[in-house]
Amino acid sequence: MRRYSIASIPGDGIGREVVPAAIEVLTAAAAKCGFVLEFRHFDWSCQTYLETGKMMPDDGLDRLRDHDAVFLGAVGFPGVPDHISLWGLLLPIRREFEQYVNLRPVRLLPGIASPLRDKAPGDIDFWVVRENSEGEYSQIGGRTGTGENEIVVQQAIFSRRGTDRILRYAFDFARRSGRRHVTSATKSNGLYHSMPFWDERFAAIGAEYPDVAADQYHVDILAARFVMSPERFNVVVGSNLFGDILSDLGPGITGTIAVAPSANLNPERRFPSMFEPVHGSAPDIAGQGIANPIGQIWSGAMMLEHLGEAEPAALVMRALETALIAPDIARTPDLGGNGTTAGFAQAVRSTLLGL
Amino acid sequence: MRRYSIASIPGDGIGREVVPAAIEVLTAAAAKCGFVLEFRHFDWSCQTYLETGKMMPDDGLDRLRDHDAVFLGAVGFPGVPDHISLWGLLLPIRREFEQYVNLRPVRLLPGIASPLRDKAPGDIDFWVVRENSEGEYSQIGGRTGTGENEIVVQQAIFSRRGTDRILRYAFDFARRSGRRHVTSATKSNGLYHSMPFWDERFAAIGAEYPDVAADQYHVDILAARFVMSPERFNVVVGSNLFGDILSDLGPGITGTIAVAPSANLNPERRFPSMFEPVHGSAPDIAGQGIANPIGQIWSGAMMLEHLGEAEPAALVMRALETALIAPDIARTPDLGGNGTTAGFAQAVRSTLLGL
Ligand SMILES: CC(C)[C@H](C(=O)O)[C@@H](O)C(=O)O
Ligand SMILES: CC(C)[C@H](C(=O)O)[C@@H](O)C(=O)O
Repeated sequence: MRRYSIASIPGDGIGREVVPAAIEVLTAAAAKCGFVLEFRHFDWSCQTYLETGKMMPDDGLDRLRDHDAVFLGAVGFPGVPDHISLWGLLLPIRREFEQYVNLRPVRLLPGIASPLRDKAPGDIDFWVVRENSEGEYSQIGGRTGTGENEIVVQQAIFSRRGTDRILRYAFDFARRSGRRHVTSATKSNGLYHSMPFWDERFAAIGAEYPDVAADQYHVDILAARFVMSPERFNVVVGSNLFGDILSDLGPGITGTIAVAPSANLNPERRFPSMFEPVHGSAPDIAGQGIANPIGQIWSGAMMLEHLGEAEPAALVMRALETALIAPDIARTPDLGGNGTTAGFAQAVRSTLLGL
Repeated sequence: MRRYSIASIPGDGIGREVVPAAIEVLTAAAAKCGFVLEFRHFDWSCQTYLETGKMMPDDGLDRLRDHDAVFLGAVGFPGVPDHISLWGLLLPIRREFEQYVNLRPVRLLPGIASPLRDKAPGDIDFWVVRENSEGEYSQIGGRTGTGENEIVVQQAIFSRRGTDRILRYAFDFARRSGRRHVTSATKSNGLYHSMPFWDERFAAIGAEYPDVAADQYHVDILAARFVMSPERFNVVVGSNLFGDILSDLGPGITGTIAVAPSANLNPERRFPSMFEPVHGSAPDIAGQGIANPIGQIWSGAMMLEHLGEAEPAALVMRALETALIAPDIARTPDLGGNGTTAGFAQAVRSTLLGL
């Protein structure tokens, strides 16, 4: 029997609720399709930080290394500054494991209303390919001077290698998925050095893919176009920061970011890839058992796909979409229902078993 | 009679069409209200660059200095790289004249449909206060290494002085406008040095305004919230880059960025402020006389307001809003009509004269 070892890190807040819920669904899919998912749990979180001064143990990355994938909930909680929690756990995993692709579908699901007028599933259906290892997120920089004279410097670093590989991934993905149109997010009119370079590489790599259409927009107007004409996008590629913004805005136009998944991919498979919802730890509703588990379940489907289990992945998505339009299923409060995390996951699970 | 000297720079593309159209409306308002606007025209543009190698003459900034305001159309055109055209004209004006505030209303106008469901004028009505002089837009950085080994570095610079003054402006503005709620755009979970500093200063300055509510969101989720719940914003303050993105996304949710105005303000009035629409030079429709002049006219109203002519400013806005809902007025193609730039401006002008 095929076996996959998965490191699960529920993390903080609602991560601790949606991860177990999603695992139930994934385990059912595995059982039904004849393979085994072995989850090993790592209880690393802001709580760990408050107790030990570290988000994860010193050998944390090594402990994850031998798994087939990492399944993460959410990191960050009030009381621990974000830049500590994230740079102590999430970002080192992305970087150490060269998960340089952050792949995020933006797709309107059946049964969920878009805040945009007159949009049905199919009208909003594209992918954001985000650079996930360098760029604007950098620890280089610092503060100098004091009081009124203080100056803070933040460096962004774009390497040719890092830029080319994400652009190439985007074009390959566009070709592979049959959606032969890549849009680049730039800001070369304001960001004097980094973005003209990005544009140059986009043109160079694009030239290697004559069968894929390529265009580019400054990120400001691109954000506006996500709202005004989402139909026109297929694959949108952006830097770490731009990809981050666009891949939250994307789910925003599909109704809620609670449903959005993401895959942090090491395409060469030298290291485990990591799957996590786009939403955060949501301290405002944490502990109440009412968090929407869809983003986590969908992230799980992306994980199955990455593991080579394409059919089970499709099965999970079919179950999710079927459950979403079933009249008698109690959806979570963010979707206007009064259901619970566990209840909704159960419903998806039994829908799946019945498919 | 009160006289104001205005430097007008139509610039490129549709800037050359919407600036004259707006000037007609503003001149009519001045005549009706008993003051004089003296426009002096500066023909600086990408065309100038192609002919002379410079976007403006060496003493360009000095020639503008003695005016009461600068009225700009749009800068940038295919054939001249954006980072040349912008850093050769627009950005030096913003910086040399310490126009450190970029103020942009996000307001749904009557007669224009929002792409968001169920929104009427009043539902979307807030302001973006953007830092306009430093931050991510910096010429510090460069490229090193060649070929596969090339590395590009882009520095962002945040000064305490620059950060504090924009935050203070936002809180003052919130107090003055009676909309006592300021939301800060941050990204302190990813941008390691700059944004934790920004948050720190936001908390410190906010403490000076106990009568103004303050909250903050990471820019990614904030972008999503613009779409999901625009009603909840009053004044949104952001860095140069974040403010740029949010103030294009804002107009996106109000239907079109063609209508959005902006004021580049030197609040101390040591230097002229500059007024320009948010849209660019729109090469795709330039030269056809069909560009929507609303963003330029509204920018003109903001200019009148800044000059101390609040009543004429309100008159221009009233004329604009009245014209927009008049059944027989030919709107420009972007608003679904078949009218021209000149025709629409004429209609606003005669509406104004009739008010
Ligand atoms: C043209 C460009 C440099 C400019 C900016 O980003 O500041 C524009 O987008 C704006 O918002 O005024
Ligand atoms: C938590 C934060 C550092 C992270 C990011 O910006 O990368 C998150 O917003 C995401 O998109 O995964």
